[in-house]
Amino acid sequence: MTTYAILSRLSPLLRGRFGCKVRAISCAVTCSQLHKVEGFVGLTGKVDRFGGVTVNLAEVGLPVDISEDAFSRLLKDSLVQWKADGKMAVWLQVPISLSRCAAAAATHGFTFHHAKSDHSMLALWLGEGESRLPGFATHQVGVAGAVLDESTGKVLVVQDKNKTKNAWKFPGGLSDPGENIGSTAVREVFEETGVRSKFRSLLSIRQQHRHPGAFDMSDMYLICRLSPLTYDINFCPHECLRCEWLSVSELAETSSTTPITARVARLLLYGLEHGFDKIDLTMEELPAVYSGMLYQLYHRQLPAKS
Amino acid sequence: MTTYAILSRLSPLLRGRFGCKVRAISCAVTCSQLHKVEGFVGLTGKVDRFGGVTVNLAEVGLPVDISEDAFSRLLKDSLVQWKADGKMAVWLQVPISLSRCAAAAATHGFTFHHAKSDHSMLALWLGEGESRLPGFATHQVGVAGAVLDESTGKVLVVQDKNKTKNAWKFPGGLSDPGENIGSTAVREVFEETGVRSKFRSLLSIRQQHRHPGAFDMSDMYLICRLSPLTYDINFCPHECLRCEWLSVSELAETSSTTPITARVARLLLYGLEHGFDKIDLTMEELPAVYSGMLYQLYHRQLPAKS
Repeated sequence: MTTYAILSRLSPLLRGRFGCKVRAISCAVTCSQLHKVEGFVGLTGKVDRFGGVTVNLAEVGLPVDISEDAFSRLLKDSLVQWKADGKMAVWLQVPISLSRCAAAAATHGFTFHHAKSDHSMLALWLGEGESRLPGFATHQVGVAGAVLDESTGKVLVVQDKNKTKNAWKFPGGLSDPGENIGSTAVREVFEETGVRSKFRSLLSIRQQHRHPGAFDMSDMYLICRLSPLTYDINFCPHECLRCEWLSVSELAETSSTTPITARVARLLLYGLEHGFDKIDLTMEELPAVYSGMLYQLYHRQLPAKS
Repeated sequence: MTTYAILSRLSPLLRGRFGCKVRAISCAVTCSQLHKVEGFVGLTGKVDRFGGVTVNLAEVGLPVDISEDAFSRLLKDSLVQWKADGKMAVWLQVPISLSRCAAAAATHGFTFHHAKSDHSMLALWLGEGESRLPGFATHQVGVAGAVLDESTGKVLVVQDKNKTKNAWKFPGGLSDPGENIGSTAVREVFEETGVRSKFRSLLSIRQQHRHPGAFDMSDMYLICRLSPLTYDINFCPHECLRCEWLSVSELAETSSTTPITARVARLLLYGLEHGFDKIDLTMEELPAVYSGMLYQLYHRQLPAKS
């Protein structure tokens, strides 16, 4: 009787006591013996419509203290089978507690695709030629809100505590996961200034790659036009040095600001003078064709269909 | 003399032979003995301006086969010190081969922040209250290109092989890491249709969260207006069923398309009839204030300053 066969027949309590030492010896056992471990179903996974297979190591009943070497041998045998079956790719979802399996997988060519919170995802392209696997998220999204008081021609601006002093800019920050652009703008304005506002339009988008502070990824920065619902300033001293309602024409001309802020101030000035339809991208919420899930679409507003 | 002290004085060749067995015994040694291992500098790292410390495990001279338990004890002692020093956060960069250290770190509250290719990054907030650590990239970016031949009023459309048949849409796909929006549009149009084109403007942005196929992340989809440089179609049969120059007015009215495509067709029709300045967001490349690195800014074009 093999070591694993004996092991699997022990009560969990006894198995635990012997486990460490026995499994160290078991390093040498074959994968066929591993399959006799109670609850282990093999490296089975879901096949997707592109011919890839996804194995979630949290769901296949691996022994929790499987060694890197034992997992490596198991993976090696599975890869032979997947290649023979013509699979295009293998995705391995690895719970953080089993991260040693990621190291083992790397010896077979797997690389990290992404990781979030309590698990990592590794991938290996098995098809011909260059990998056609889709990448992971590449951009962080930041949103700034220009709260324009049309009655006074003034816009709400802040001086950032952490950056260049005396440079006026619009309050803003990174979107939370799953947060819509307009919601980020309204939230950040409120958190930084105490002013409540309402989303009106998208004005401008900036794209930058290898953005400092973005972990070498890209950055999409969107500036929105908002209307004030309240006017009293109660700014957050952790983030801001100053916060004021400043005339748009002054903001458009001052050197005490960033080029983008000045540019958006010019847009706002133009909008004040010639109509915001000239500068706005308005938002509409629509259901996606396949899922029915809502998305938000921004573009210049067209006249109503005749 | 401690086991590690003996170990560190052996020649690398002898150390290698004894290494596995000796290190297994060494599991029980203290961190102070670990520090005697040649080349190991302790869990030292760079301190950032927010009071966080980043330790790159590839650069601190850890023994390559350090056990999860030994690393866990090392990390525990280091955490005591970092907390005493008032550090706000700890970032652990873990090369894939040392992924077992990620599992050990998780027992101390670390979670994955992100992972790319050959390493993962874990983080632990040490400050008061809710974590203020910045997140990682949240959006994938896809770009579609509407190649409009102004002389004929026709636009280049494809029927996707993998999705709903008979639905005309603009060629497009995910941006490569570091790729600008306009470049993605031009590249995807060429790859799918064989037509060469030139970026003219951004027309519309769609934001969707929990996007299918985006690993539960968000999606920003940008549709651009392009001008053709060549006209002959040579479409890619892996991606497309059909590819044609279709009149914009027909595309705006047909049911054989997606809502977004129809909407953009209406925008293009309006632009043809009333001027593209009415619908375009034009692009300008500017240098960032701090780094001098270029970014691309999109907004409605303003008349030149008088």
